[in-house]
Amino acid sequence: MSEQALTRRGRPGYDQRAILEVAVAAFIEFGYDATSMGVLATRLALSKSAIYHHFTSKDELLELALAEALDGLEGVLTEEKDEVGPAIDRLARVLRGAVRVLTDRLPYVTLLLRVRGNTDVERSALSRRRAFDRAVTALVTEARDEGSLRGDIDPRVVTRLLFGMVNSIAEWYRPEGPEDAAQLANDVLAVALDGLRVSAQE
Amino acid sequence: MSEQALTRRGRPGYDQRAILEVAVAAFIEFGYDATSMGVLATRLALSKSAIYHHFTSKDELLELALAEALDGLEGVLTEEKDEVGPAIDRLARVLRGAVRVLTDRLPYVTLLLRVRGNTDVERSALSRRRAFDRAVTALVTEARDEGSLRGDIDPRVVTRLLFGMVNSIAEWYRPEGPEDAAQLANDVLAVALDGLRVSAQE
Repeated sequence: MSEQALTRRGRPGYDQRAILEVAVAAFIEFGYDATSMGVLATRLALSKSAIYHHFTSKDELLELALAEALDGLEGVLTEEKDEVGPAIDRLARVLRGAVRVLTDRLPYVTLLLRVRGNTDVERSALSRRRAFDRAVTALVTEARDEGSLRGDIDPRVVTRLLFGMVNSIAEWYRPEGPEDAAQLANDVLAVALDGLRVSAQE
Repeated sequence: MSEQALTRRGRPGYDQRAILEVAVAAFIEFGYDATSMGVLATRLALSKSAIYHHFTSKDELLELALAEALDGLEGVLTEEKDEVGPAIDRLARVLRGAVRVLTDRLPYVTLLLRVRGNTDVERSALSRRRAFDRAVTALVTEARDEGSLRGDIDPRVVTRLLFGMVNSIAEWYRPEGPEDAAQLANDVLAVALDGLRVSAQE
């Protein structure tokens, strides 16, 4: 899917995606403001004009990087849009999908989580993120109204706590680490939906 | 408790704590590196030497700020150290206490959560934070071994997910906002221990 958006423009050595990956790693390490196109050129061993062959500006690099994360998250919602069945099951699949997007696109999601709204690109990304959160909150509300989700917590707080848990995974998850991404999604769902306590009935 | 550590040294206008509060707000807004003692002096309408009357360095300001958060969290563990009773109940009280420390000392905890280990002061704070996490993981393991906590999730992952949820509250909680801190602690415990799902038995 992301391969469709970022096409190879025929520059030998680095294609658009490879440059984007190096840029995102630098943005995460040094911060977006502190990473100049000159720094990126040095890291890539390319001239600045070679980078500008692929991207019109540093802002465009950030925009494409944030879109990688947001397209992934929005795609998870789109997959559920026409599904029927209990809202709690759709919510579970959205949570599982969000963990998958985070582990699959870790640097892009990490960058998204650091955005504070300092530029138009950042504000636009935050606006898309808020729309995603509102859609999840609507799903939480639907699951509550159908009687499958507890009704004593504000759905907006539920969404914030759920994504607090999911997003925190970006701080410690490493693809080469001992935690399997699918197992991690199972763990999140187990805590969020069924809780940690072993109930007396079991 | 924090009042014991930070005593008023008799300077009119600002005492140590008031200077620390302004410094922490600046560290959060601009970042620690980008906040010079000159910037702080301007914000406080004090001379730099007036600040140095209270603090030997910017590093000491950071150290005292991080200690506010860490003393609070460690205090929660100390309260439980000599308690008996099921480990799951002690874990629940530690979680509740951690939410209380976060809401009571919001700027200090926010600063702690941003620390990346760039200086000795930061590395020392991270080391204390890791010791706290290890103690919580030991409590999770104890609750699992007593049979009150589900055994199918690695206790280290449990601790990370729990504190991912708790720490994320710092991103949106505002003391003047609609969410009551005690209610928020109840919400966290409800999600973490009993889960969101309304089970068939209820």
